[in-house]
Amino acid sequence: MNAREFRRRGKEMVDYVADYLEGIEGRQVYPDVEPGYLRPLLPTAAPQEPETFEDIIKDVEKIIMPGVTHWHSPYFFAYFPTASSYPALLADMLCGAIGCIGFSWGSASEATLVALLAARTKVTRCLQAASPGLTQAAIVEKLVAYASDQAHSSVERAGLIGGVKLKAIPSDGKFAMRASALQEALERDKAEGLIPFFVVATLGTTSCCSFDNLLEVGPICHEEDVWLHVDAAYAGSAFICPEFRHLLNGVEQYADSFNFNPHKWLLVNFDCSAMWVKKRTDLTGAFKLDPVYLKHSHQDSGLITDYRHWQLPLGRRFRSLKMWFVFRMYGVKGLQAYIRKHVQLSHEFEALVHQDPRFEICAEVTLGLVCFRLKGSNKLNEALLERINSAKKIHLVPCHLRDQFVLRFAICSRTVESAHVQLAWEHIRGLATDLLGAQKEEKADRKLK
Amino acid sequence: MNAREFRRRGKEMVDYVADYLEGIEGRQVYPDVEPGYLRPLLPTAAPQEPETFEDIIKDVEKIIMPGVTHWHSPYFFAYFPTASSYPALLADMLCGAIGCIGFSWGSASEATLVALLAARTKVTRCLQAASPGLTQAAIVEKLVAYASDQAHSSVERAGLIGGVKLKAIPSDGKFAMRASALQEALERDKAEGLIPFFVVATLGTTSCCSFDNLLEVGPICHEEDVWLHVDAAYAGSAFICPEFRHLLNGVEQYADSFNFNPHKWLLVNFDCSAMWVKKRTDLTGAFKLDPVYLKHSHQDSGLITDYRHWQLPLGRRFRSLKMWFVFRMYGVKGLQAYIRKHVQLSHEFEALVHQDPRFEICAEVTLGLVCFRLKGSNKLNEALLERINSAKKIHLVPCHLRDQFVLRFAICSRTVESAHVQLAWEHIRGLATDLLGAQKEEKADRKLK
Repeated sequence: MNAREFRRRGKEMVDYVADYLEGIEGRQVYPDVEPGYLRPLLPTAAPQEPETFEDIIKDVEKIIMPGVTHWHSPYFFAYFPTASSYPALLADMLCGAIGCIGFSWGSASEATLVALLAARTKVTRCLQAASPGLTQAAIVEKLVAYASDQAHSSVERAGLIGGVKLKAIPSDGKFAMRASALQEALERDKAEGLIPFFVVATLGTTSCCSFDNLLEVGPICHEEDVWLHVDAAYAGSAFICPEFRHLLNGVEQYADSFNFNPHKWLLVNFDCSAMWVKKRTDLTGAFKLDPVYLKHSHQDSGLITDYRHWQLPLGRRFRSLKMWFVFRMYGVKGLQAYIRKHVQLSHEFEALVHQDPRFEICAEVTLGLVCFRLKGSNKLNEALLERINSAKKIHLVPCHLRDQFVLRFAICSRTVESAHVQLAWEHIRGLATDLLGAQKEEKADRKLK
Repeated sequence: MNAREFRRRGKEMVDYVADYLEGIEGRQVYPDVEPGYLRPLLPTAAPQEPETFEDIIKDVEKIIMPGVTHWHSPYFFAYFPTASSYPALLADMLCGAIGCIGFSWGSASEATLVALLAARTKVTRCLQAASPGLTQAAIVEKLVAYASDQAHSSVERAGLIGGVKLKAIPSDGKFAMRASALQEALERDKAEGLIPFFVVATLGTTSCCSFDNLLEVGPICHEEDVWLHVDAAYAGSAFICPEFRHLLNGVEQYADSFNFNPHKWLLVNFDCSAMWVKKRTDLTGAFKLDPVYLKHSHQDSGLITDYRHWQLPLGRRFRSLKMWFVFRMYGVKGLQAYIRKHVQLSHEFEALVHQDPRFEICAEVTLGLVCFRLKGSNKLNEALLERINSAKKIHLVPCHLRDQFVLRFAICSRTVESAHVQLAWEHIRGLATDLLGAQKEEKADRKLK
């Protein structure tokens, strides 16, 4: 394909993309296919001769699209939002064309791991400086990291990769990590000769969007000389609105590192995670290696920041471009309006749930997530979710809060409106009525037998 | 921006991308700006009100492009190629529009790290099964990984992150890792009570594109029950041509894991790394964690592969799409022709260097990389590279081979032709003549004094 054909096909693709996004509501949000459907539809080897663009784009509709979960459908309420916007798509086209390899952004999982590894190096060097006889292994064996029992699974994974113990701190009634529980765990572990070195505080947990108390946890970490990493993967975007900033109080004094994902809720397509670190040498000290083929004349001038020392991979895409497009084309006001609209829609859904006495809200609604369930057993709620996701009109995922099976209704799509939320709720209510009716009949049947 | 405006702007962007790539040869390959140039040109905060697309695209030319190193210029011969092609760009547009978050592909660095961590878990579990009293720390303290002294810096980094020793195996006269040197290191370490557990063999090293001898290294790893990871980040793409397949001999019998980067040399834009592993449970066993919000009904059916257990981040982009576009629109023949053309161009450059007795070739030319230098001191060659990169007509990076400072001429651009290589060589020769002349004059001057 030469530039002339690219001009033609590129414009067709622009129309295809616009058609897809304009018509997404008409597509079933969750696919009908079964795992493995694609294998017999694809040849086992690349074609020997080039094929035409027409053939390929036909196959996109015929064989790819039937397998797609439409994350940007206004009927997608699962997980958390993944960002999408026209400016970001435009920027990504340019990003692809420039195609330069930046040599620190990764995902939130990577941010947590990088922070943990930096903290591990820092505490190991510090203890070895005090007692030069200590081996690294002897220290690492005693290190303990902490996170709330509500923290994301990637925190446990970072502990596993870093080869250190990770302990879960029991959260309070609002699913938040508080001072007393953390202090208790630290005291117990220190008494056993262990070395606390790392705490992850989550702002906006995945399960129910709860917030660890930074103003309580922060001073303890400061006092104990423990690295505090703040994971605000989802909620971080909301802090562009002054009314949510209080949830971030304490971050300047106490956080050693902070991460949020603009690719979740700030209209910048995946992937785009932003990480800050209080003292950059803590990070670069843990990872810096300088082979000749990567040396450059500005290396030691302090004028430039070599992000390759901040992350696990060497290369990175030119992702800031799409962030820049989005910031400029929405403006702070446009971005704030977007966040506020989502929060308002989640409160609208919350109010609907409250109006139906068969249901209950399971956690405080602060941002764009509503955790709810039918009053009754876990089995009942599993059955409801099964019905919701089998009908494929909307898509939700569950979570466990303590021993309760809970449904998560997350406001996700860029184009979701009140009408979609209302329709989703009517749909859920209808399925609940069917389910409860069926159960009643079953009980009656059993009595008759 | 609504869909209507996106249709208009998207088509303008397609033209901008085509204009950029068609005109890239006319742009200076390496920028004139100094680090920090961008900061005063950008506002310190996002705009309150949305801006227009016209303003932004004007700024792209005015403030972004002057800072860009044009990796796709036919005058770019630095590092290794980074892929670009029109089909991949088209696919990326669609990929952005679909914007689904796949839950294993990362970069080669990540592949090495993931393999090392899997090997670490495997050996630890195995030793603990034999001696239940052993702690993980006691084992990890004794683990040793090995790679040639020519391996990429990311291997050292993986060792650092994994908390294990990494030892460099001296390469032979052709910069390859051979049996004798590896065996010697293993014997010495085992005699000291250490535990060899992981070897990285590189096919196509970054410095000079040398090839570790898989048929020698493989049987040793097999014999010693040591995990063999093969890093073919650059050279892997060439194995689609039968004439290069012999370099891969032994991979089926001996490799536990294998990685190459289609985003280097297979026309698929960054990022796209492909990793294979012989026994998937070795990988998933090291990382698997299953929180409720990520559970799904097909989890235990064996029908689908959950790539999140294969990698560090949770999410991934729909990157296979662009690979699929590229495979189909080039066909195997088109891709082979592309690889062969690059290899032929590097041999053309090699022949030019041979014709000038002032220069020497420093390593065997197998694929698309030529390592060369002026006969003489490192200082002389550093001065030559300085002149080349200051002139900014072409862009090269150096490497060290043993104690020699060497210039790397890598065939990179999708659009590089014989004419560009000839012109580049004339340019280098001219600069060498100037440099040698200036030195002669200096010497004469010193004699007169």
